[in-house]
Amino acid sequence: EEVAKLLALKAQIGTEPVAQKFTLKTPKGTRDYDPKQMAIRETVFDTVVRCFKRHGASTIDTPVFELKETLTNKYGEDSKLIYDLKDQGGEMLSLRYDLTVPFARYMAMNNIQTIKRYHIAKVYRRDNPAMTRGRYREFYQCDFDIAGHYDPMIPDAECLRIVSEILSELKLGDFVIKVNDRRILDGIFAVCGCPDDKFRQACSAVDKLDKLPWSDVKAEMLEKGLTEESCDKIGSYVQMAGGLQLVEKLLSNEELNQNKLALAGLTDMKVLLQYLDLFQVTNRVQFDLSLARGLDYYTGPIFEAILLGNQDANKERVKGETVGVGSIAGGGRYDGLVGSFHPKGKSVPCVGVSIGVERIFSIIEANIKKEKGKTRTNDTQVFVASPQKGFVEEKMKIINELWNANIKAEMSYKKNPKMLNQMQHCEESGIPLAVIVASGELDAGTVKIRSVGSREERTVDRSKMVDELKGNQNNIPMFSC
Amino acid sequence: EEVAKLLALKAQIGTEPVAQKFTLKTPKGTRDYDPKQMAIRETVFDTVVRCFKRHGASTIDTPVFELKETLTNKYGEDSKLIYDLKDQGGEMLSLRYDLTVPFARYMAMNNIQTIKRYHIAKVYRRDNPAMTRGRYREFYQCDFDIAGHYDPMIPDAECLRIVSEILSELKLGDFVIKVNDRRILDGIFAVCGCPDDKFRQACSAVDKLDKLPWSDVKAEMLEKGLTEESCDKIGSYVQMAGGLQLVEKLLSNEELNQNKLALAGLTDMKVLLQYLDLFQVTNRVQFDLSLARGLDYYTGPIFEAILLGNQDANKERVKGETVGVGSIAGGGRYDGLVGSFHPKGKSVPCVGVSIGVERIFSIIEANIKKEKGKTRTNDTQVFVASPQKGFVEEKMKIINELWNANIKAEMSYKKNPKMLNQMQHCEESGIPLAVIVASGELDAGTVKIRSVGSREERTVDRSKMVDELKGNQNNIPMFSC
Repeated sequence: EEVAKLLALKAQIGTEPVAQKFTLKTPKGTRDYDPKQMAIRETVFDTVVRCFKRHGASTIDTPVFELKETLTNKYGEDSKLIYDLKDQGGEMLSLRYDLTVPFARYMAMNNIQTIKRYHIAKVYRRDNPAMTRGRYREFYQCDFDIAGHYDPMIPDAECLRIVSEILSELKLGDFVIKVNDRRILDGIFAVCGCPDDKFRQACSAVDKLDKLPWSDVKAEMLEKGLTEESCDKIGSYVQMAGGLQLVEKLLSNEELNQNKLALAGLTDMKVLLQYLDLFQVTNRVQFDLSLARGLDYYTGPIFEAILLGNQDANKERVKGETVGVGSIAGGGRYDGLVGSFHPKGKSVPCVGVSIGVERIFSIIEANIKKEKGKTRTNDTQVFVASPQKGFVEEKMKIINELWNANIKAEMSYKKNPKMLNQMQHCEESGIPLAVIVASGELDAGTVKIRSVGSREERTVDRSKMVDELKGNQNNIPMFSC
Repeated sequence: EEVAKLLALKAQIGTEPVAQKFTLKTPKGTRDYDPKQMAIRETVFDTVVRCFKRHGASTIDTPVFELKETLTNKYGEDSKLIYDLKDQGGEMLSLRYDLTVPFARYMAMNNIQTIKRYHIAKVYRRDNPAMTRGRYREFYQCDFDIAGHYDPMIPDAECLRIVSEILSELKLGDFVIKVNDRRILDGIFAVCGCPDDKFRQACSAVDKLDKLPWSDVKAEMLEKGLTEESCDKIGSYVQMAGGLQLVEKLLSNEELNQNKLALAGLTDMKVLLQYLDLFQVTNRVQFDLSLARGLDYYTGPIFEAILLGNQDANKERVKGETVGVGSIAGGGRYDGLVGSFHPKGKSVPCVGVSIGVERIFSIIEANIKKEKGKTRTNDTQVFVASPQKGFVEEKMKIINELWNANIKAEMSYKKNPKMLNQMQHCEESGIPLAVIVASGELDAGTVKIRSVGSREERTVDRSKMVDELKGNQNNIPMFSC
């Protein structure tokens, strides 16, 4: 027994890290993406970008850092989360905090009046990372925006259609897209006796309704100085949700339709829901008066997509992000932001949506893990192998033919690898086919084509090899779950 | 004349910028990529990535910043070009300077023994930007590396084949890939009487032979303390270039083949050239004894691809970059770098290549400009239009059908756009087809399909519209030149 204890102790010591010359880690709140994570990331980006392109979007890119002053006074309290660069002589720089401010800076700087662009890039926030919940200090944002002076709700409807297309294609389960309008909310606040200067505070309280009961939200509003009567009246409005019928009902509400903001918001909401019907997404969309969205700069319709399947994850929702842990996409209309950058204050109305790709990566990773699915990290279709020694040059001739024919192919980097190791590599990497050559095939001018899964082999003429393989190239999905 | 002067003056004043609330610019040495530049960038990346995948590579990603200590003592004098982040409490961070050090850190941290990976990402250097020559402080690197204990020259040959495939596919004109081996150079320095501790300095002098005459290089070596005799002897070696015959000749040179380093290098070079013959790239490859490469960490074969067509650009070559202004790709074997990171010093031999994508972007942009080519910034295939007012909802129904059928389609965001404007938009954006609907078509249950280029129209049944359009979707190239 004593010996067993000592052995256990020794084993423990053996796994202790030895003294390192330096810390081998990534900075706090960041991570490397390994090949499996990259395969998922690329599949998601591919789906998202195909959708953006289906809608005629172009793309832009901006530097990872901006002049510090470009980001100043844009994020309120959250400005403290901005990463600054060290003053090494020259300009004061900060890492971008989101993609919207650089987009507005780009538009104003180049005096652009109309653009439909997407931008997928990493942004940086010195937040407390919650990496187990997929929240990092370096993370992707994936934004699509339509800018220009257009007729009401046509671009807005397309943004919602895009959210619906992407979430459907990614097969993440059932989802709902909640829509509301800042003008409707402001109108409600006004008719309920909330003073103008308390609109944003009331809005921020209402925004918590998806994770707090009404009584808590009411308490917050009372604390912020609203009257009991105002709160109760606001409560009776913001707890409503529905569709076109609800819009009609509110439009005929004489209190609301006397308020210019509410009337404008409701009129546009009616048009939006009609357009969404033509775009066949009505069944996904809910007009929800409790939706408020965190950002200050929204001026019209706002929306947020929420996955319904995963109730636990929804409970986890933490506020303060464009896309929270529970929501999967969000956006809205912001008609004033570009003007705030433009030297002459020239405004360009914008509407946009941000897809919560980091959360999507996490969900897909979790699904693959749960279903014990496999992730391929490369696309290789054919492995060139030989059971005999001395065939490295022959294999090189064959693989050269395959590459010339644009067939994705690999071979061992060892001169005389064991056949078993070669086949194991194929199985582990999910390579579906092997071309096998040995002295028999060489003499006969043939090769064997082997299906790695079924282990079936057939012999084909060397001159027909490429055609045979091209006919056999199925599209193997990068992951299964 | 006085009036003309005043008018000229007035015109000048008119173009003066007005007072701005803040500076509307990107940081020094950086730029935005507009949609046209992005179209080129994506086409280049697509070609490069397809090639990497054809060779079975997976991809990884690392954070944009690393712990400052990870980058310390890696770049010699150039360390002063590293961007540090401000100390905001917590870890000391720096922006990555290249992709090789983060790759080695990733390998050591995860104890990875074999990987074939590519990594395309931006790196940061506080260098003096020469933006007109395509040199920026934020720029892309595009690295492919094969790591693992393998047999000599098999992965090395594949790296060279990859360079050849990519440069051929990108149609940048004729190119040559120069190859040499650090061990051959060191062997030459040794047999020429250069002291061991001056190898790296001699190497750095030789590296300038592509832009300086031999006399200047000799002067530098003399300055560094080499004797006249050593210099002349080195000169007679490093001005040689050729193929397999030259390798054979040097292998039979009794002075050189007595030197272990030179012998090992030449033996491998012979194998490499034989493999390259099987990979059909011999005509692109030249064994050039003057090739030295800037980086200290190379331990074996080194290579550099140079475009031949553009002699002016080659003259501009400035040293000090992995990929200089004149070279278009480069790389080599570095067997010691990963071990220098590993806590137990465990080594993983690596060979890799870096594709000079920024230079490739510049060349393609210049070609398009020269040939007055057009660049499309989106893929849209079909524009849904109407010459009549009041058709926004009908157009929405049509475009909804097209999106459902995965056809890339756009329509105006204005309710009643002018037909002329709609057609002009198609012409400007390169959209090849328009679906046109008006009351006549609506009544007849048809649409018109118009070829934007030829202005030909034909009427088809609404029920056949999608099939007709799918048959007509040619792959329009993103740019022509």
